Amino acid sequence: MTPENAIRSLDQLKIELPSWGFADTGTRFGKFFQTGSAINTADKFADAGIVNKFTGCCPTVAVHVLWDFVAGEDPKATAEIAAKNGVKIGSINPNLFQDQAYKLGSFGNPDAEVREQAVRHGIECSKIGEAVGSNLISYWFADGTNYPGQDSIRARKRRFENCLKSCYDELAEDQVMLIEYKPFEPAFYQTDVADWGMSYALCKKLGAQAKVLVDTGHHYTSQNIEQIVAWLLDEEMLGGFHFNDRRYADDDLTLGSIDPYQIFRIFNEIHAYAAETGSYPEIAYMIDQSHNLKPKIEAMIQTVTTAQELWAKAALVDREALGVAQRSGNIVDAETILKSAYNSDVSPLLAKWREEKGLDADPMEAYRKSGYLQQIEADRTRRRKELGITQDSSYA
Amino acid sequence: MTPENAIRSLDQLKIELPSWGFADTGTRFGKFFQTGSAINTADKFADAGIVNKFTGCCPTVAVHVLWDFVAGEDPKATAEIAAKNGVKIGSINPNLFQDQAYKLGSFGNPDAEVREQAVRHGIECSKIGEAVGSNLISYWFADGTNYPGQDSIRARKRRFENCLKSCYDELAEDQVMLIEYKPFEPAFYQTDVADWGMSYALCKKLGAQAKVLVDTGHHYTSQNIEQIVAWLLDEEMLGGFHFNDRRYADDDLTLGSIDPYQIFRIFNEIHAYAAETGSYPEIAYMIDQSHNLKPKIEAMIQTVTTAQELWAKAALVDREALGVAQRSGNIVDAETILKSAYNSDVSPLLAKWREEKGLDADPMEAYRKSGYLQQIEADRTRRRKELGITQDSSYA
Amino acid sequence: MTPENAIRSLDQLKIELPSWGFADTGTRFGKFFQTGSAINTADKFADAGIVNKFTGCCPTVAVHVLWDFVAGEDPKATAEIAAKNGVKIGSINPNLFQDQAYKLGSFGNPDAEVREQAVRHGIECSKIGEAVGSNLISYWFADGTNYPGQDSIRARKRRFENCLKSCYDELAEDQVMLIEYKPFEPAFYQTDVADWGMSYALCKKLGAQAKVLVDTGHHYTSQNIEQIVAWLLDEEMLGGFHFNDRRYADDDLTLGSIDPYQIFRIFNEIHAYAAETGSYPEIAYMIDQSHNLKPKIEAMIQTVTTAQELWAKAALVDREALGVAQRSGNIVDAETILKSAYNSDVSPLLAKWREEKGLDADPMEAYRKSGYLQQIEADRTRRRKELGITQDSSYA
Amino acid sequence: MTPENAIRSLDQLKIELPSWGFADTGTRFGKFFQTGSAINTADKFADAGIVNKFTGCCPTVAVHVLWDFVAGEDPKATAEIAAKNGVKIGSINPNLFQDQAYKLGSFGNPDAEVREQAVRHGIECSKIGEAVGSNLISYWFADGTNYPGQDSIRARKRRFENCLKSCYDELAEDQVMLIEYKPFEPAFYQTDVADWGMSYALCKKLGAQAKVLVDTGHHYTSQNIEQIVAWLLDEEMLGGFHFNDRRYADDDLTLGSIDPYQIFRIFNEIHAYAAETGSYPEIAYMIDQSHNLKPKIEAMIQTVTTAQELWAKAALVDREALGVAQRSGNIVDAETILKSAYNSDVSPLLAKWREEKGLDADPMEAYRKSGYLQQIEADRTRRRKELGITQDSSYA
Repeated sequence: MTPENAIRSLDQLKIELPSWGFADTGTRFGKFFQTGSAINTADKFADAGIVNKFTGCCPTVAVHVLWDFVAGEDPKATAEIAAKNGVKIGSINPNLFQDQAYKLGSFGNPDAEVREQAVRHGIECSKIGEAVGSNLISYWFADGTNYPGQDSIRARKRRFENCLKSCYDELAEDQVMLIEYKPFEPAFYQTDVADWGMSYALCKKLGAQAKVLVDTGHHYTSQNIEQIVAWLLDEEMLGGFHFNDRRYADDDLTLGSIDPYQIFRIFNEIHAYAAETGSYPEIAYMIDQSHNLKPKIEAMIQTVTTAQELWAKAALVDREALGVAQRSGNIVDAETILKSAYNSDVSPLLAKWREEKGLDADPMEAYRKSGYLQQIEADRTRRRKELGITQDSSYA
Repeated sequence: MTPENAIRSLDQLKIELPSWGFADTGTRFGKFFQTGSAINTADKFADAGIVNKFTGCCPTVAVHVLWDFVAGEDPKATAEIAAKNGVKIGSINPNLFQDQAYKLGSFGNPDAEVREQAVRHGIECSKIGEAVGSNLISYWFADGTNYPGQDSIRARKRRFENCLKSCYDELAEDQVMLIEYKPFEPAFYQTDVADWGMSYALCKKLGAQAKVLVDTGHHYTSQNIEQIVAWLLDEEMLGGFHFNDRRYADDDLTLGSIDPYQIFRIFNEIHAYAAETGSYPEIAYMIDQSHNLKPKIEAMIQTVTTAQELWAKAALVDREALGVAQRSGNIVDAETILKSAYNSDVSPLLAKWREEKGLDADPMEAYRKSGYLQQIEADRTRRRKELGITQDSSYA
Repeated sequence: MTPENAIRSLDQLKIELPSWGFADTGTRFGKFFQTGSAINTADKFADAGIVNKFTGCCPTVAVHVLWDFVAGEDPKATAEIAAKNGVKIGSINPNLFQDQAYKLGSFGNPDAEVREQAVRHGIECSKIGEAVGSNLISYWFADGTNYPGQDSIRARKRRFENCLKSCYDELAEDQVMLIEYKPFEPAFYQTDVADWGMSYALCKKLGAQAKVLVDTGHHYTSQNIEQIVAWLLDEEMLGGFHFNDRRYADDDLTLGSIDPYQIFRIFNEIHAYAAETGSYPEIAYMIDQSHNLKPKIEAMIQTVTTAQELWAKAALVDREALGVAQRSGNIVDAETILKSAYNSDVSPLLAKWREEKGLDADPMEAYRKSGYLQQIEADRTRRRKELGITQDSSYA
Repeated sequence: MTPENAIRSLDQLKIELPSWGFADTGTRFGKFFQTGSAINTADKFADAGIVNKFTGCCPTVAVHVLWDFVAGEDPKATAEIAAKNGVKIGSINPNLFQDQAYKLGSFGNPDAEVREQAVRHGIECSKIGEAVGSNLISYWFADGTNYPGQDSIRARKRRFENCLKSCYDELAEDQVMLIEYKPFEPAFYQTDVADWGMSYALCKKLGAQAKVLVDTGHHYTSQNIEQIVAWLLDEEMLGGFHFNDRRYADDDLTLGSIDPYQIFRIFNEIHAYAAETGSYPEIAYMIDQSHNLKPKIEAMIQTVTTAQELWAKAALVDREALGVAQRSGNIVDAETILKSAYNSDVSPLLAKWREEKGLDADPMEAYRKSGYLQQIEADRTRRRKELGITQDSSYA
């Protein structure tokens, strides 16, 4: 692909920010608090708006239903907050893990009443989606078991099939249900939707509005993610991504911080698919990271710009030459063609794209100079004091 | 289940022996030769017959087409050798990795001529199966790539779909095509049929005669095998097993030598399925192990008797009590019920089952006392000398 | 070993209970609360006392300095609570991860002031140990970095060496410093004391009072724990264990719930060492598990009795026969000797040992019948109400 | 570091080529032969000489004693072959895994006679080293066990300590013994020297002439290699590297083909150490890869030039700015400084360095244009015919 086309391909990469990514988060060993972290939904959208302002490619924000909507109130209130900050509501994320009722699972729970509660919540989420103009309902399940024997794996599978169907049947025509998979955590023996094959099998039974969601950190160690992406693309079953990076488990680090070449190879599959079919697939690119230590807004900007860099590099792969090398079994050249694109300095391309959009060539620097952090630190410190919120220790 | 029923359930566990498991095998660092190892197909069937004679549950032998049939000759010759040793030919295993043509793959090869060669071999295997009365064709593919960029993952997937279909279409009505998956080795970057999801997706496209083959050693580390088995059972897509054990990669150790509790849990899923549906599923239980260090026949007997022990233990699980514990969320009791069956001493049960069959209560001891090993060691040493075969070093 | 000797060997297995294991704990996705969970230190010791009462082998309780002692007060107050419940204070566990100052580490922190704070805490812990008559200070470090480049790995190593020395130098003569290792979590790029080799190297520099602590859940997947135990025994550097089980990461499940054979093999190394040297090594056997779902006291009893079972099985290994098989390279027999002990039904042995101690043969059943749980549930529910503690949701 | 200094640092990176890397190798499933592969030691040195000619940084060749020396003849014959091809003999590699005697191990074997055979070979290797002017003896052990119980882990450890000492005591004053570790393969239950900690502990007992050898492919998945390198540097115990890359197990792929950022981070530790201490540590940089599919000489050139690229990138890290960011806990900036060097286009630097050495700017292209491959393919095909060597199938 020519540099000019690579620049154009950047228009395809719209990255959704997670509202929960601006609040304090941590590990089971506690949280390290940040003075500038978001206190409420308005703060989250304000911060997301800032990331979008400086990067120019984050027009939507994923919302967590329990945290970003007030029960009993019109969900459009949240949409208005979004609009005020120059963004829109993106994927709707049900919460099926937090309520004490979900101790033994949500859709997989042995208790029919709990399953009904979970299904009601799922349906409510799609109604909220309709109300706020979002067509993505993004399901992640903490469901599973911690000990051998704890529950019947097949019974849980069938409960999932039934509950998902109940939710699927209530989708609006243009809504898409994304089903995420994850090998483990918080379930430590068996997770009900543990790998792409389980997510795929469930989606196939539901129908054309169900698609697989690939979280880049939710794989067995060594598993080839780009192959899963390639298969799902070929099956027209890839609905979206959750962006983050990992070294050990579901570490939720910023994208490309541990293995940038892998992210490049994933993006390469998407560009290759587009080159072959003539258009980019409809995929939701969403960030889902937890940055306990990095400043939240900076961590978000870093992931966004890293994604753009790796996307642009992958766009530069010489597909014609690659095809020739592949067909003739020239492994060394095929790999070199990939590496050559990967090693390209794409900063001029990104600068040009940003210039076209009226953006600063260095979003991080521009953000830092803007004084936004100083302003929210002062504001939120003051409000925390008023609200009586301490940031001393999260461990009890 | 009552001990009596557990004994009866042992009749369900017919274990297929691999002909190649009686010949010298090794690692890439070389082979350690055994004086008593099989030289030819007749030896392999003789050894398999002995294992069946002392264990009473190994009526069939898996064959490798390239090694156990003489090209151009009537395959029934091999069936006759089998019959002479009191066993039958079981699954037919194509060899799609040994020919130099397969350097870049068989069904996934970029070269159409190589793919055609591979498909011809696959079809030939089903014809051999028909000729010798075997209804299982068991496909394992070494296909994949070693380096990023080496080939198009999606193109390879589509080549696989096409080649598999060509073979599937030539199956006899009662034949079943088993498709095995494996995460890596000998392909080190990407394996074309890498996990159960890929095998499942391919089988679904082929039709009802295609089923997934689960090799107990072919999973990502930490992956929950019993869950995959449970899902495949529920989907009626589980065609068979390859038995072995592992600690690191595809170590091909004898069954249950590393993690016996896992094998117990796998068998538990099968008994649970049978308890619920009223009958045991049609599954081919096949050994596929490589015992470079253990004496070959002993290693085979050890796996067979270990499988029987773990099968019998899993049969003893008190399913009614387990169901009660599961439905009430009593995790401690549910686990204890499983563990209690696992910790049971099943040697009296196995002794009784063997007595009924007119077998010695200790197959290993009976084999050792039989003098068979001494006899084949003398015979094969003499024949090796005559044939000019040395067992000095396999490394060049 | 004879069954009689195996029974006697059970006297060697004193298991320390963790005070924190009786309070509510969870994952980063939240906690599922238990009505009977401990509210304060007195509750924890009461519960520990109950576990000791029914199992008869848990005479000590590990304490977490921040949670089990009141700053500024005489630590003997806690020792008195212990005594009242028929147990003693065991290992003293510093807390070097909870304070907001430790965001970038404790002993590895780039800021000298934070390191001094951490060292002061370490020294204070050994003083508390002296005061309450405990000779074990058990160090676990959450220290590490989350991103490449975040800090100098070598600088952090040297800071650790210095801080550890400052603490070591203040140990009383009979005190032992245990240094635990852990590959990851909560640090996701690099952990300062990541494996046994790092712990070993640090201990060697400190002196004879520093020993390695092996947490059975703190290893890379596939790593051979019994080999590490064997090496540390041979080096006289094994100070203690933290008992739990895992399938994926540091899952903190109850002991032997996932891979009981591995625990058996670890215990086998200890019995083998004792058989060879004539006496059991001085090792602290401590539980460190997190049972979000299982009832806390039951989970503790389950781990204790499972440890006793696997310990007794490992004691039964016929060491003479094993030695013969090993020296002659008879792998099948050597493995069978191990498996034969593992498959033994040790419940009569355990019953006999318990009878001798005046204990019920089934500690779990005896505990359940005691009515203790009902009593603390009522009591603690009432006290929570009085204290205004809710158990609705831990996620914010 | 300035670009000029980065160029100068390339002079530090002398990469040793493995003689065995030019011959046909494969996996346990067979070899795919190459027409141009080396038939004998002279071929291997000729090919190594060519790699050195075009890359200018490979002055030495590692030799495998069993394969590159004729028993009973003066080892200087091999040194002369080397000299003729413009290279020298580098590390001497004993072979302690191929002989049938080593079925149960070499230094760890239960049979004292086998251990003596192994020790004699080790000592012979150091004598050969003295004779040919090589001061590195590089030990890799296939030793271990395949099944629990097979042998006493502690007995094996002590046998290792004794055998190593016997060899160490015979080293010439300037010779260094490198001890490599590897988690598994070909041993599948327990490997005698399994991790850096074991190698380190053994070396420490031997003395100052024993150092740890880090093979970049010999680690548990997720293990942080750069941390191990940093620790060994700080302990002055890092003797050398074996270069290759991996995704799953010991895949022996070409360097940086799977995770180039990790290699960069390893090199970064070396540059950081040099920056701090004022000089580069004495480390042997050696290639050990198996390229079954890539043309052998090309694969070697690719690894060499990739190593140079990643070395140059790592040299460019702005250490002063990095130190500032690290000390102030600015994680985002610290990471960005690393990434900025990693993303630099170093081809101009490499071109300049090559120009200074009178080399072609593109070693791969220069090699391809040289016609060397065509020449050896013709020559070796002819000689194979004369010698009666076929390249049909390696699998029996």
